[in-house]
Amino acid sequence: MDSLDKMFKPDSVAIIGASNSEGKVGYIIVNNLLEGNYKGKIYPINPKDDEIQGLKSYKSVLDLPEAPDLAVISIPSKGVNPVLEECGKKSIKNVVVISAGFKEIGGEGVKLEEELKSIAEKYDMNLIGPNSLGISDSHTPLNASFSQSMPPKGNMAFISQSGAMMVAIIDWSFTSGIGFSKCISLGNKAGTTEIELIENLANDPETAVITVYLESVSESDDFINTLRTVSKKKPIVVLKSGCSVAGAAAASSHTGALAGSDTAFTTAFEQAGIFRVTTMDELFEVASAFSNCELPKGRNMAVITNAGGGGVLSVDSMERHNINIADFSDETVKKLEEILPLEAACTDPVDVLGDAPTDRYKDTLEILLDSDEVDAISIIVCPTAKADTDGIADAIIEGTKDSNKPVLVVNMGGPSFTEPNKKLRENEIPVYVFPESAVKVTDYLASFEELQHKKFDTPVDDIDDVDKEAVEKIFEKVKADGRDTLLGSEAYAVAEAYGISAAPIKLSTSAEEAADLAEEMEFPVVLKIASDKILHKSDIGGVKVGISNRDEAKEAYDEIIANAKKAHPDIVPDGVEVQKMMDSGIEVIVGMVRDEQFGPMISFGMGGVLVNLIEDVSFKLAKGLSSEEIDEQINETKVSKLLKGYRGEAPGDIDEVKNTIKRVAKLTLDFDDISELDINPVFVYEEGSSALDIKIKL
Amino acid sequence: MDSLDKMFKPDSVAIIGASNSEGKVGYIIVNNLLEGNYKGKIYPINPKDDEIQGLKSYKSVLDLPEAPDLAVISIPSKGVNPVLEECGKKSIKNVVVISAGFKEIGGEGVKLEEELKSIAEKYDMNLIGPNSLGISDSHTPLNASFSQSMPPKGNMAFISQSGAMMVAIIDWSFTSGIGFSKCISLGNKAGTTEIELIENLANDPETAVITVYLESVSESDDFINTLRTVSKKKPIVVLKSGCSVAGAAAASSHTGALAGSDTAFTTAFEQAGIFRVTTMDELFEVASAFSNCELPKGRNMAVITNAGGGGVLSVDSMERHNINIADFSDETVKKLEEILPLEAACTDPVDVLGDAPTDRYKDTLEILLDSDEVDAISIIVCPTAKADTDGIADAIIEGTKDSNKPVLVVNMGGPSFTEPNKKLRENEIPVYVFPESAVKVTDYLASFEELQHKKFDTPVDDIDDVDKEAVEKIFEKVKADGRDTLLGSEAYAVAEAYGISAAPIKLSTSAEEAADLAEEMEFPVVLKIASDKILHKSDIGGVKVGISNRDEAKEAYDEIIANAKKAHPDIVPDGVEVQKMMDSGIEVIVGMVRDEQFGPMISFGMGGVLVNLIEDVSFKLAKGLSSEEIDEQINETKVSKLLKGYRGEAPGDIDEVKNTIKRVAKLTLDFDDISELDINPVFVYEEGSSALDIKIKL
Repeated sequence: MDSLDKMFKPDSVAIIGASNSEGKVGYIIVNNLLEGNYKGKIYPINPKDDEIQGLKSYKSVLDLPEAPDLAVISIPSKGVNPVLEECGKKSIKNVVVISAGFKEIGGEGVKLEEELKSIAEKYDMNLIGPNSLGISDSHTPLNASFSQSMPPKGNMAFISQSGAMMVAIIDWSFTSGIGFSKCISLGNKAGTTEIELIENLANDPETAVITVYLESVSESDDFINTLRTVSKKKPIVVLKSGCSVAGAAAASSHTGALAGSDTAFTTAFEQAGIFRVTTMDELFEVASAFSNCELPKGRNMAVITNAGGGGVLSVDSMERHNINIADFSDETVKKLEEILPLEAACTDPVDVLGDAPTDRYKDTLEILLDSDEVDAISIIVCPTAKADTDGIADAIIEGTKDSNKPVLVVNMGGPSFTEPNKKLRENEIPVYVFPESAVKVTDYLASFEELQHKKFDTPVDDIDDVDKEAVEKIFEKVKADGRDTLLGSEAYAVAEAYGISAAPIKLSTSAEEAADLAEEMEFPVVLKIASDKILHKSDIGGVKVGISNRDEAKEAYDEIIANAKKAHPDIVPDGVEVQKMMDSGIEVIVGMVRDEQFGPMISFGMGGVLVNLIEDVSFKLAKGLSSEEIDEQINETKVSKLLKGYRGEAPGDIDEVKNTIKRVAKLTLDFDDISELDINPVFVYEEGSSALDIKIKL
Repeated sequence: MDSLDKMFKPDSVAIIGASNSEGKVGYIIVNNLLEGNYKGKIYPINPKDDEIQGLKSYKSVLDLPEAPDLAVISIPSKGVNPVLEECGKKSIKNVVVISAGFKEIGGEGVKLEEELKSIAEKYDMNLIGPNSLGISDSHTPLNASFSQSMPPKGNMAFISQSGAMMVAIIDWSFTSGIGFSKCISLGNKAGTTEIELIENLANDPETAVITVYLESVSESDDFINTLRTVSKKKPIVVLKSGCSVAGAAAASSHTGALAGSDTAFTTAFEQAGIFRVTTMDELFEVASAFSNCELPKGRNMAVITNAGGGGVLSVDSMERHNINIADFSDETVKKLEEILPLEAACTDPVDVLGDAPTDRYKDTLEILLDSDEVDAISIIVCPTAKADTDGIADAIIEGTKDSNKPVLVVNMGGPSFTEPNKKLRENEIPVYVFPESAVKVTDYLASFEELQHKKFDTPVDDIDDVDKEAVEKIFEKVKADGRDTLLGSEAYAVAEAYGISAAPIKLSTSAEEAADLAEEMEFPVVLKIASDKILHKSDIGGVKVGISNRDEAKEAYDEIIANAKKAHPDIVPDGVEVQKMMDSGIEVIVGMVRDEQFGPMISFGMGGVLVNLIEDVSFKLAKGLSSEEIDEQINETKVSKLLKGYRGEAPGDIDEVKNTIKRVAKLTLDFDDISELDINPVFVYEEGSSALDIKIKL
């Protein structure tokens, strides 16, 4: 795809469907271009009129004296594809289709959209829409949209899958004091996707932060790795809606039930370095901090407040958002004591008292900006009788000019702060009404800073000692047998081929063979009827534990076969499986559910029979899984405390756990046919581990 | 205490420390009374001037021609107590002390405040402060405060422990469109507490909802029962700040470590029927709904939106807030289909499409207000080109006039909604900017409706078959021995005296006695060295399990004594405890930590060795514990699923669990000397239960 530069900075724009009738979309777009002070050439295209809103109009793009950089199409859906074909012939590379009546109406619309898509592909066009509200760039300036007003200028890009939400947000921005670089209404995403736009905006000098409202994520070969290359450059904040219960209920495997459809999105965003928020409010609260602030070096926050309550509320929030109360050095405390009254609090949060004049704020800010113990500062101002809200704003603007720390202002109130807020925003200092917001955004700022240090190695790809062919053969056999579930012995063989430590299970088809296998894997062993058709094996006498010699093994074999025959005369068992009895260890579960969009998702957590009740599980996508992420996955669970040696108990072999996770990832990435996999429990020992029960479903 | 009516509706007010110097607090208060159109008599009190701001001034309250209904004191702290004494002599019943310099400065201030308190008590005064910002009542109107502006009139009472926060909130209210009945700055709470104020406001016809910002909760004999009597009458929404980690870390017992100091507050508020919020924003978001809305009959919410995205975001929020998507009847769907275009969504959320004119909103609203399947309605408006934001507001006002369902409006945008928002608020319809808010507040509205149906019985007080004397004797012995921890056999005896089912443990001091006890409780038994000084009993050979006859018992006794002597020659054990071996059951934990302010707090959850890791625990305060709350406590845990029969397993005897909780509550309420109690595990069987390990610390 060509760069999208000319899409947002076109030297000329054609509006196909331009109109002189007020209220018509084709009128509004031409009008918006004119009103929005677009400086390039505007070519209205219209079959009837010779002049549109004072501009020379053309019958077709084919008649234009040049190929415009951008075409905006706003005609009834039936006519769009022929016109798009014309655009292609005219070598127009950027097209926005406003027209609705495509995929979103189903039936005929779906066909029209397929056609539209193939025309765009044929001519290698960048295509936004159809069913888009249009695009705007406040720096160009270009308002090639249906939206009534040009968004206020700023450095926040906003991509929205909902046109109406975009209109709402632009309207809201006029009172909330945020500004945009580009606004893009995605529409049906038939051509250019949000992923391509994000990649592009990451290199846009006018954009400091990318905000996205999404209802679905576009298909991508490698979502995580694609976005990882850009998410470190610029913060990407996404509000993805549509976390449905229905999806979660549908997931069927053990760990799948815990996953829910939304887990894959959350996990994908996280691994891609994208910040996911849950409300519209939060989306812009966070974005406004990214759009203005320096990044903190760490998570130590200082609060300056003229109301004790504001400090306490900040501290409460810090706990919720993993932000630390800054631990001032003696030197810092001493400096503060020198400038503050006796009753003031000179540790964090710094209470400059209700009667604080401007200078007290100014001097405190100076000291804290200078203190190495402080990574970020929240300044809280209550409009007390003595507070010169305007003067304090000036002092903050002046004091932070050369600062490299994020400073967030909390002006608690309304009319008292109208002017100060305006002034602060003009000087790129974010302002909030309540203390909680400043803490919350600091969490995001710090997370983006931490993202810079993340290493993305490829431990899964690096595994080269697996026997793929052996697994292929097993799967072929299972399929040939008309089964979709592997026998225990088959699953063990798969684990063995992929270097996953497991308790040996082998299939015997005679008493003698059972005894041989048992001897080979060393007694004691368990014998179990082998059949995917017999479900409650213990109940029918199909399991014998604690077999400790050859004679017992042979006897057990015969008994099991007899019991099975008695209970299910119609079923021919595959034989009897011999499994080595293992010492018990720390029980963990490693599993996989395959997400339609993002591929294998690996689960890890506390194992055992109560796994679904305890719900101590963490998910990561296998694609792109890094060593750091495997560490994270383990550490996010409660069972990790057991693995590290809980209350004086012996620890577990964490390297072995990592190895199992990595190899399950490798296996499920190598074989698309595995639809579900669950190893529960894996016994983790002080040295080594052993997968006890491996379930693989194709 | 007298009713506080005259405090807020005084016929006359004396301002002690009234002043003619602008900027002085004594000036501002007189000025605020005048500017605030206070209609009663104002008596400035000042030793120097004869006239204050045009009003006749007096040297002392003793000189006044009558006893004013309210006195406001604003003079340096040293002079306050003598003046308060004069107020008492003059029979002034309501006093607000603005002056600072009391408890908050420590040392001398603490003494001054004690004195102040006793004077107020002596004369049976209602006293607000000291260190208060004052009070205001927008209906009287009375602005007896230091705050620059009279808060906008409304039906929300606001009590604040922080003066500066009150100023901030009043300032903010001018832009946020909320209005107040009364604002009260608590100051140091030396006299009238927030609890007394809440009790009083519950009967105030001008107040519909009580909002409170608290940093500490005042002492009260019976917080839960006092507030329960009023919390059903009027919604009480509290932001309690200061949830410190430090407190949590200090808690020492097993369950205490999970509790944290803040848990007691949360639990107390919940049991008292108070809504606790975590941010300032939420406090007023929720309060504005209570102040305007009807209560929903249930949790089924319908959404009307002109943007699909708004609907999806609402549904996402519903899941988070336990609100249901309304399930429309065929009839409702049919009615909607008749009035809406083909492309509109006629199930919940109802998408009236981006081009929706006013009538489409109006008609949809009418149908949904009329539908029994809908308990609450959220109306989302995006300022699309076709949306007549003003007309829609009018239609909503008109359409909801006779409605008895809560209708919440989400006007997504800024300038497009300036007028509509004003209009809606004037007509007592709450307006929000984002869809999430409407859903969140509906959760609170529904919870308040549900509170109306809560029954507060007293199952703990009703227990009358306990042997208090037996427990007293045991505790006396423990104390006499200089111990603070009970032996297992003592704890068992306590449990027995209080009807808590437990595995018998008895103390033997000879081999013969051990055998007798074992026989009495029936074999098999466990023998255990009895000593609070020997910690790792198993390690030194101090425990013998599976003893199945008299001979084994005697032999085990002697061995244990010998082993103990060998390992700890200096310790004289109390003997050997004999405990009946029980079948294992579903493991639960029942415990108690004593909160300094709220008394015994009972914990319940999944038991076993990993209790602190799994953290499946729910807390309730013992005081006032109702049967419904015991049910809730059980149902809030994951282990409740095991008790109900998990995945085909046998269920547990839930009645027995309730019995144990009730009796632990009774025991710990009866005996203040119990500082900690932990029963872990309790084995719960299909019938009955058995406490295995009971730890009681005095």
